[in-house]
Amino acid sequence: MFNQNNTAILLVSCPDRKGIVAGVADFLYRHNANILHADEHRDNELNIFFLRTEWSMSDFSLDIPQFKKEFLPIAKKFSMKWAIAQTDKKPRIAVFASKEDHCLVDLLSRQKSGELAGDIALVISNYTYSKPLVEFYKIPFFEIPSIKDQAEMQALTLLNNYKVDVAVLARYMQILSKDFLESFNKPIINIHHSFLPAFIGARPYHQAYERGVKLIGATSHYVTEILDNGPIIEQDVVRVTHRDSVGSLIQKGRDLEKIVLYRAVKWHCENKVLQYGNKTVVFD
Amino acid sequence: MFNQNNTAILLVSCPDRKGIVAGVADFLYRHNANILHADEHRDNELNIFFLRTEWSMSDFSLDIPQFKKEFLPIAKKFSMKWAIAQTDKKPRIAVFASKEDHCLVDLLSRQKSGELAGDIALVISNYTYSKPLVEFYKIPFFEIPSIKDQAEMQALTLLNNYKVDVAVLARYMQILSKDFLESFNKPIINIHHSFLPAFIGARPYHQAYERGVKLIGATSHYVTEILDNGPIIEQDVVRVTHRDSVGSLIQKGRDLEKIVLYRAVKWHCENKVLQYGNKTVVFD
Amino acid sequence: MFNQNNTAILLVSCPDRKGIVAGVADFLYRHNANILHADEHRDNELNIFFLRTEWSMSDFSLDIPQFKKEFLPIAKKFSMKWAIAQTDKKPRIAVFASKEDHCLVDLLSRQKSGELAGDIALVISNYTYSKPLVEFYKIPFFEIPSIKDQAEMQALTLLNNYKVDVAVLARYMQILSKDFLESFNKPIINIHHSFLPAFIGARPYHQAYERGVKLIGATSHYVTEILDNGPIIEQDVVRVTHRDSVGSLIQKGRDLEKIVLYRAVKWHCENKVLQYGNKTVVFD
Amino acid sequence: MFNQNNTAILLVSCPDRKGIVAGVADFLYRHNANILHADEHRDNELNIFFLRTEWSMSDFSLDIPQFKKEFLPIAKKFSMKWAIAQTDKKPRIAVFASKEDHCLVDLLSRQKSGELAGDIALVISNYTYSKPLVEFYKIPFFEIPSIKDQAEMQALTLLNNYKVDVAVLARYMQILSKDFLESFNKPIINIHHSFLPAFIGARPYHQAYERGVKLIGATSHYVTEILDNGPIIEQDVVRVTHRDSVGSLIQKGRDLEKIVLYRAVKWHCENKVLQYGNKTVVFD
Repeated sequence: MFNQNNTAILLVSCPDRKGIVAGVADFLYRHNANILHADEHRDNELNIFFLRTEWSMSDFSLDIPQFKKEFLPIAKKFSMKWAIAQTDKKPRIAVFASKEDHCLVDLLSRQKSGELAGDIALVISNYTYSKPLVEFYKIPFFEIPSIKDQAEMQALTLLNNYKVDVAVLARYMQILSKDFLESFNKPIINIHHSFLPAFIGARPYHQAYERGVKLIGATSHYVTEILDNGPIIEQDVVRVTHRDSVGSLIQKGRDLEKIVLYRAVKWHCENKVLQYGNKTVVFD
Repeated sequence: MFNQNNTAILLVSCPDRKGIVAGVADFLYRHNANILHADEHRDNELNIFFLRTEWSMSDFSLDIPQFKKEFLPIAKKFSMKWAIAQTDKKPRIAVFASKEDHCLVDLLSRQKSGELAGDIALVISNYTYSKPLVEFYKIPFFEIPSIKDQAEMQALTLLNNYKVDVAVLARYMQILSKDFLESFNKPIINIHHSFLPAFIGARPYHQAYERGVKLIGATSHYVTEILDNGPIIEQDVVRVTHRDSVGSLIQKGRDLEKIVLYRAVKWHCENKVLQYGNKTVVFD
Repeated sequence: MFNQNNTAILLVSCPDRKGIVAGVADFLYRHNANILHADEHRDNELNIFFLRTEWSMSDFSLDIPQFKKEFLPIAKKFSMKWAIAQTDKKPRIAVFASKEDHCLVDLLSRQKSGELAGDIALVISNYTYSKPLVEFYKIPFFEIPSIKDQAEMQALTLLNNYKVDVAVLARYMQILSKDFLESFNKPIINIHHSFLPAFIGARPYHQAYERGVKLIGATSHYVTEILDNGPIIEQDVVRVTHRDSVGSLIQKGRDLEKIVLYRAVKWHCENKVLQYGNKTVVFD
Repeated sequence: MFNQNNTAILLVSCPDRKGIVAGVADFLYRHNANILHADEHRDNELNIFFLRTEWSMSDFSLDIPQFKKEFLPIAKKFSMKWAIAQTDKKPRIAVFASKEDHCLVDLLSRQKSGELAGDIALVISNYTYSKPLVEFYKIPFFEIPSIKDQAEMQALTLLNNYKVDVAVLARYMQILSKDFLESFNKPIINIHHSFLPAFIGARPYHQAYERGVKLIGATSHYVTEILDNGPIIEQDVVRVTHRDSVGSLIQKGRDLEKIVLYRAVKWHCENKVLQYGNKTVVFD
């Protein structure tokens, strides 16, 4: 019987040329892969080829370390950037939170109900507020007040100790330093409470209210050194009217933030997101 | 029988104080109005009160000129900005178009099928391209090439001759001068092909493509002296993916532009839009 | 200063005739009401007039019992069905839950963060599963297994003891008897996991999958004796594709169910929903 | 340079087994195809494999007749249902229309602006109403009044004479006979003005109004012998409120119908739609 949990996923981007699909498909076939999904796309402007393919591990003749070795010649031939993942090895997530804890609460309940493709390994917050709920879910909670350098050092040690694969800024509202990003050197997903690139920076709902927009948005993106400028993973919007105060924009926005961050985290953990330049391919 | 076409609409904004609703309702009742819809709202931050009310003219004891005279004391008492309109007097519309004529085509066919609450009195374009279709619909067409000052003079004369109440820039893509705006001195509705305030100015789809957004938008707004900065009437978005090229963004965007501009024109002609500061109230 | 929490709301429906708005507005003005919002609408087909108006209680010269007495002549004159509520008296909610507890979890966290306009007074479930989380939020939890008659008797006693104003079926998935509905005699809000009236009854996601729809939906409605047929309060949909299995439909649907039920509960508690015939007016 | 118009598309469905992707990819590679997009999916419940792949014809070593011959052994080996198309051979479309001509007008203007991936070869209507506009666009127009059998005979002759590949029922509102479907034996796309399977049959907006839904929808689908029951290609919805009369539902619905039918026609003509059982795969 088909076991949903025992599949492998290969993500590839490389300069486009003939034979990429045939090369990968032939390799998988020779090792007895049963392909479940595959999606390939060429960016005509940049001449880059993107490929995501998922197959069952049940009959596959290679394990992951063997795959990494055997696939190397093909990867080299086509100058591929590539990654291989197994769905039964879930990514370990660190959630950074603040007093605005609706995204954290949402991620915790989704983890409990099995909707998240990753495991929340720990929660780091600059407030003690969410501690009881996090511990209710039996997840380690660390309060790190926001004294910049020292806080980042503490956080880095925790990320390292807990073998974290991806950090999620769930309305953390602190700007991480260049040093931190370089030391951690793993993906960080942020939720910004506007439809980027509109309303970059602080108090986007107030900005939206001032401008009199008819829709408000939220944007999840990978964190880069430049504020609110990293590759966008997901965006969504909700309608507002003249009846909405700043307060009700904030309240409506919370639901957007939760779902937009959740989708980004889920897709990232499902190995559906591929960064290139300052953009993402999100395979569906 | 109730006649949909014979109603009056009163639009009011004024500093909030007690008695506004009672004052207006009592006035209408005394003159035998049958109220069909009414919507009142107070902006708590600015302390402004907004009111839109629509009633049947069939039993109403005043005609519009009489109303204007009789209502004056109430308007003065509450320092109202106000306007009265009758649905059987449709606003006369001038459509400004260019070679990108999808919004023009859309408005023309809606006018034909009776979906527009206004009448297209004439079309002014800087290309001859759309002339046959406009004339098919028996609407006067004027080609005015874009030699700024002279073109604006010509256009103003036409707007005056055709007794135009509202101008619609249907992807006109020319910036109207301050002088023109002041001379015309009536509402001008523009469609901008982005989710404002993101991607102001030229080539917004190219900007959106570069930034890697996951939704593209369109915005209809009243024209002010500052480019793409006037009060927003309506916005909408559509989902895009990594599979979309600039070309397909442009194509998807056309459908957004059509509907977002149409809604703005329709609501404006239905006297549902009230400007205040740099925002709008859109009564629904 | 304006106190958001100290307002009164009047909901009215009655046969349409002249003078309703003037009568209500004059009454409120005479008692020194400062109107914050008002919305009136006439249903042309049924000739019914609907009115919702909200005013500040701070200067208002009547308290609620006085209002009920003083307003009676007006209500009688116009044959009104009416209700008056105060925002500082929050409705008391009973949540009925089952093992599918995502809606319950959502409502609990919203109550904690102050997003719900009501108070969850107790939770009744036919599984013990959610007990720890409910008690974490310090809300009484009662497990009532689904032995129909006896369960309903127990539930009725609890609803009575806890002075419940509205019951919410948060994926309760039991059909309540006619006797129960008559004995409780207060509003009951249900969430059905389809876009009603499509896919009435059991296993709607399986039905949707079989039919090959491109959008799935959820519907919140008041419960009546006829299954999935009560007045609809809110609906929403989400896009699905051929890549979705029944399992992923269920997962996507959970997010719909949460938000669609939440909106219904919130609007109901804010006195924005007015039932008439088998429909609702939802004031916004 | 890459020529957007000179690509080939292969659509395949077959029982799932190992080697399909490798077989196809190897075949294409051996004939020097440059793959632009590819999408593969396995339906786990039915164990069917779906594949769509698009490649540039510029360097490809086979023309379409040669492809059909050379590919046969692979197709046989995997028991494939398959089709090959070239984007420079646009499908020829017959539009069936009635007095409700908004979908027809929409398709005509899209054809003119190059948004449709097919060519409208002729228009058949049971009213003369749209004749001037159709002829303005220089497309043959035939009025066939609705005397069932005879009308269908006439229509079949026209479809044959004009070498039609696909028929589009643009609010045609006549039920085609089983005989007609069998004689034509090519795809027919219909637009139904509800969110199927809700409100099957006549007057769906009236049904929706009666039921008090909060969203109305439209559905495009392939026509089968059973009314409103064929494989769904696309659906969309729009929000309505208590303020909407049946008339405004109809008007809002028109915009839905136009876009939902357009997408179906476009996707069909781009060879993105694959029927299986009573469902569709829509590759994006």
